[in-house]
Amino acid sequence: MMKHFDKASILEAESFYRRDLINSLSGYKSLNLIGTKSKEGLTNLAPFSQVFHIGATPPLVGVLFRPHSVERHTLENILDTAAFTLNHVTEGFYRQAHQTAARYEGSEFEATGIGEEYYLDFFAPFVKGSPLQIGCKLEETQVIKANGTVLVVGAIEHIWVDEKGVRMDGSLDLNALGTVTVTGLDEYHLGQKIGRLSYPKPGRDLVEI
Amino acid sequence: MMKHFDKASILEAESFYRRDLINSLSGYKSLNLIGTKSKEGLTNLAPFSQVFHIGATPPLVGVLFRPHSVERHTLENILDTAAFTLNHVTEGFYRQAHQTAARYEGSEFEATGIGEEYYLDFFAPFVKGSPLQIGCKLEETQVIKANGTVLVVGAIEHIWVDEKGVRMDGSLDLNALGTVTVTGLDEYHLGQKIGRLSYPKPGRDLVEI
Repeated sequence: MMKHFDKASILEAESFYRRDLINSLSGYKSLNLIGTKSKEGLTNLAPFSQVFHIGATPPLVGVLFRPHSVERHTLENILDTAAFTLNHVTEGFYRQAHQTAARYEGSEFEATGIGEEYYLDFFAPFVKGSPLQIGCKLEETQVIKANGTVLVVGAIEHIWVDEKGVRMDGSLDLNALGTVTVTGLDEYHLGQKIGRLSYPKPGRDLVEI
Repeated sequence: MMKHFDKASILEAESFYRRDLINSLSGYKSLNLIGTKSKEGLTNLAPFSQVFHIGATPPLVGVLFRPHSVERHTLENILDTAAFTLNHVTEGFYRQAHQTAARYEGSEFEATGIGEEYYLDFFAPFVKGSPLQIGCKLEETQVIKANGTVLVVGAIEHIWVDEKGVRMDGSLDLNALGTVTVTGLDEYHLGQKIGRLSYPKPGRDLVEI
């Protein structure tokens, strides 16, 4: 049986119910820990499920931030220093990753026991033990008029990836990397591959690749 | 062993390699079939992995479209009619969903055998058999300066969801709905739940909820 919610019933629902429902609608979401460092040198780490591909040439990634009306350390550090890192989360530390969302005064690395890692002269901290670590430079920001959400576009400067997850064709095997995915606000999953399909053309059968 | 790509090695890579690599970076992605209908009445269906949560109050969703420099039926229909649907994909029809990306002259519903479904007086077609069907109205568009990507913001007007996937608290059980997730351009997965965690606060242990 299909259950129907119209706009009125969504808006009349209890606010936590609405938040949980609407956050679940898009489907499985990427999960990345974003690492930043303030101008004063304090590191910050926070989980994001709103990171998405924008383009390959040049390589660009997007991150959505809730409205910049209250203190948002990650966004402020990115605007101040133009540097941030994206780090995939595995089953081995997804609980600590979730815990980084708590309101700490100091560094979430210290509070949760997640290790910092630095590469070359990149300013922002990477997550030690993450199988996929990406260093990004602030490229552009936009504000969504409808609700003040801030879209940050990042230029991908560096990728460090566990080579067991890199296929010959450049695609990444996220099952092999052990990357975790999130649904709604608080539910974590691994991926279980069902198939990889050939490029679709009219009148041609799809094959497994 | 970690493999390193810097910006120069990314840009020097063969273009298909770069496309596959960069498309894989964000992690697991949502998979939705977007249903639209042209002013002339021709239906269109296409798979999107760039659909994401924007806000719950009011309920908003975002969709990213590649630059509007060539014919893009889905985007054009949305701009012309202001209506579109999002439909989750299950293992039962993920191959047809992939096939809708082929360049058909006519309707992808007809070409792939996916059924159209209409509810109330909503203009755009839903996907018959999808366990989660969302009707959206065009709210706003923005163009990302860095590469011309178009962000469409949609207002969520209707949700039809299989009630077996709706929990008491409003969150959706996507494992129960059988929703498929995608990585890179062409690889499909089911989710395998590892845990749902309580709201994180400093100094308090996380518990399974």
